Amino acid sequence: MRKEPIYSSDFDFLPNHPAGVCAPQGFRAGTVYCGLKTYGEGKLDLGILLSSVPCATAGVFTTNLVRAASVQCDEAVVKRGRAQAIIFNAGNANACTGQQGMTDAQEMLSLAGAKCEIDPALVLVTSTGIIGHLLPMDKIRQGVAEIKLGEGETAGVAASLCIMTTDTRPKRCVARLMLGGQPVFIGGMSKGSGMIHPNMATMLAYITTDAAATPAFLQTTLGELVQNSFNAITVDGDNSTNDSVLVLANGLANNPTLGQEATAEDEQKFKAALSAVMIYLAKEIARDGEGATKLIEVWVRGANSTAEAHLVGRTVAGSNLTKAAVFGGDPNWGRVIAAAGRSGAKFEPEKVDIYFGDVPLMLAGVPQPFEKAQAVEALKGPTVYITLDFHMGEAEALSWGCDLTQEYVVINSEYET
Amino acid sequence: MRKEPIYSSDFDFLPNHPAGVCAPQGFRAGTVYCGLKTYGEGKLDLGILLSSVPCATAGVFTTNLVRAASVQCDEAVVKRGRAQAIIFNAGNANACTGQQGMTDAQEMLSLAGAKCEIDPALVLVTSTGIIGHLLPMDKIRQGVAEIKLGEGETAGVAASLCIMTTDTRPKRCVARLMLGGQPVFIGGMSKGSGMIHPNMATMLAYITTDAAATPAFLQTTLGELVQNSFNAITVDGDNSTNDSVLVLANGLANNPTLGQEATAEDEQKFKAALSAVMIYLAKEIARDGEGATKLIEVWVRGANSTAEAHLVGRTVAGSNLTKAAVFGGDPNWGRVIAAAGRSGAKFEPEKVDIYFGDVPLMLAGVPQPFEKAQAVEALKGPTVYITLDFHMGEAEALSWGCDLTQEYVVINSEYET
Repeated sequence: MRKEPIYSSDFDFLPNHPAGVCAPQGFRAGTVYCGLKTYGEGKLDLGILLSSVPCATAGVFTTNLVRAASVQCDEAVVKRGRAQAIIFNAGNANACTGQQGMTDAQEMLSLAGAKCEIDPALVLVTSTGIIGHLLPMDKIRQGVAEIKLGEGETAGVAASLCIMTTDTRPKRCVARLMLGGQPVFIGGMSKGSGMIHPNMATMLAYITTDAAATPAFLQTTLGELVQNSFNAITVDGDNSTNDSVLVLANGLANNPTLGQEATAEDEQKFKAALSAVMIYLAKEIARDGEGATKLIEVWVRGANSTAEAHLVGRTVAGSNLTKAAVFGGDPNWGRVIAAAGRSGAKFEPEKVDIYFGDVPLMLAGVPQPFEKAQAVEALKGPTVYITLDFHMGEAEALSWGCDLTQEYVVINSEYET
Repeated sequence: MRKEPIYSSDFDFLPNHPAGVCAPQGFRAGTVYCGLKTYGEGKLDLGILLSSVPCATAGVFTTNLVRAASVQCDEAVVKRGRAQAIIFNAGNANACTGQQGMTDAQEMLSLAGAKCEIDPALVLVTSTGIIGHLLPMDKIRQGVAEIKLGEGETAGVAASLCIMTTDTRPKRCVARLMLGGQPVFIGGMSKGSGMIHPNMATMLAYITTDAAATPAFLQTTLGELVQNSFNAITVDGDNSTNDSVLVLANGLANNPTLGQEATAEDEQKFKAALSAVMIYLAKEIARDGEGATKLIEVWVRGANSTAEAHLVGRTVAGSNLTKAAVFGGDPNWGRVIAAAGRSGAKFEPEKVDIYFGDVPLMLAGVPQPFEKAQAVEALKGPTVYITLDFHMGEAEALSWGCDLTQEYVVINSEYET
């Protein structure tokens, strides 16, 4: 039992498309290795993403009380609603670095502004990596000087590799749709830290589009869609000092501006395509969790509210015990109901159904006899589906996590400070 | 840097004393192996603890919405405030077992009542083990028939072994004090599941005393002291379907009744001794976490409230990333500040000090240069001390957790359903 994916004929979705953030018109990217990363492949750790014209922009940021310098800079830009470039680095989060960290982040804005010949006030910055170390600004300066901006697939691939930290693979996609008779592209890339507890301090996502949209429309839409995507892979409101999701819309598609003269139908189409992009990028973060071998999809239905359905789903998907049981292929559904029970959501235990895949393990609160082999089978494969039906209301939600493996412990106990 | 333990000359504390719950006058225990446990040593899985006279009783129970049958039975007994015996089993939690589970729990009360020749309404019951399996009542009936009650160290040792599930060692202690000129004993035993996320579904603690006390005094005192002990090892309000802490006070010490005619000074003395017992039993649960090699003690000071200090301490001690770093001996303090930041507590990042042992890693929000060897040294040894000072208020709290190891994953992925 699983929630069937909804396919829409309103847009094409291209998972893992190499162009990624460089698919929409007018977006170019350039990356170099400047010596920040001491691990990982790709050997790229500093980059710039640039639009040929200023964009409407929107962003959502970590709710952590401790916020990196880059987050503080970006919030100011997003508040103004206009941006044209993002400078990004991996290997150092520039978090907990005090006043010097803020000075360094601002210098990154200036360096990118000068390089791109644009107002530094139109530059966003993201950093990811170790917390509490000052950025080696000499390397950053040297690196920015060496960056060459390029187009299309080559640039998109390089950018998606450059933002990786402990990710084992790049995450990117493209959606294509028609708005007001004009072809529109949405491109995206993301990085995790692998884990639901972000390790290297950051979950980042970058989304570009050549759609025309007002900053207010983008911000409202992003805030809404993040609930079913990036917030549905977070556990316990867990987040890092640097988490950011940024959107740039440069308007080169010449569609009727979303949030202004566009039809409600066009706005819905754009939202659906953007939602597909965001959910894909979020799920890929969960699937590539540190040490993970499986994606866990938890479908909570029959709940009183979407918020409660998410609360239960995230608690189940984030439970160390459920995660370890999924890794071990052990249909230990008691851990699922125990996690649901401590989530804080209200439900009636005697009404609950629980399924692993298609195998009912509890129906109306009563444990069901089941073929162990069948239940074990449901825990195989790259995605494990866990369903809870509360039989109370009409609300439902999907949440995602990954299994917990010995490899997770190895990665996180041997990480070099 | 660590909070220095407070030693009191008002009572003697005897960690790991074999008599445990059988140390106070009038308490006997008997245990058998009836075939519930399929793992572990000790080969004991069913027992009865009996006082020679009825006791004032108090209890605190899981806040999980999903509650085992035993918890539901015990809440009714505790509400009446009088009990004389506890029947306990390990290997099966009798949770999520529907109406049959409740019938079985009630039969356990009847069996123990008949065996001890007391009113079944004076019997408490605790179960721990796998969730969602019906108790094999034939084995329980046979087992109860075979139980022989004994006294002192032999009985105390057997009881503390009998309640174990994945615990690697029994947990018990005794405190001794004078109240109104009378010697008073407090005995205790506990079991974990090892983990902060209880695995085999239960954190249980049993405390006996020959002190005279009113049920109301016991309940109020227990509710207060549990905050600094058993609730200080819980993460995110995490708890199982069966968590219970039970106290029985039989009054055979003939002290002036606490909560009635005892002096305020005597009440304080009793509270201090009971607190020592509870903190010891709680810390031993954290230290014996599944796969754990180290106890983590987090001291949060300078906070605005004790509740916030606990919130931060539990979040840090429960963070997978902090736990893995402690296991790996990696002084990655960025994970500590990131966990504090997402805990929900309010503080000013630019005021925070962080220490691992005596090594300052962050002072007033600024990362400090430190000798790596010295910081690594602070992560060795059986207890790792992490201190956060917020420099805001006067409140402080200790919280405890354990490291996260590959062994934890092995235990929890290979657990037999």
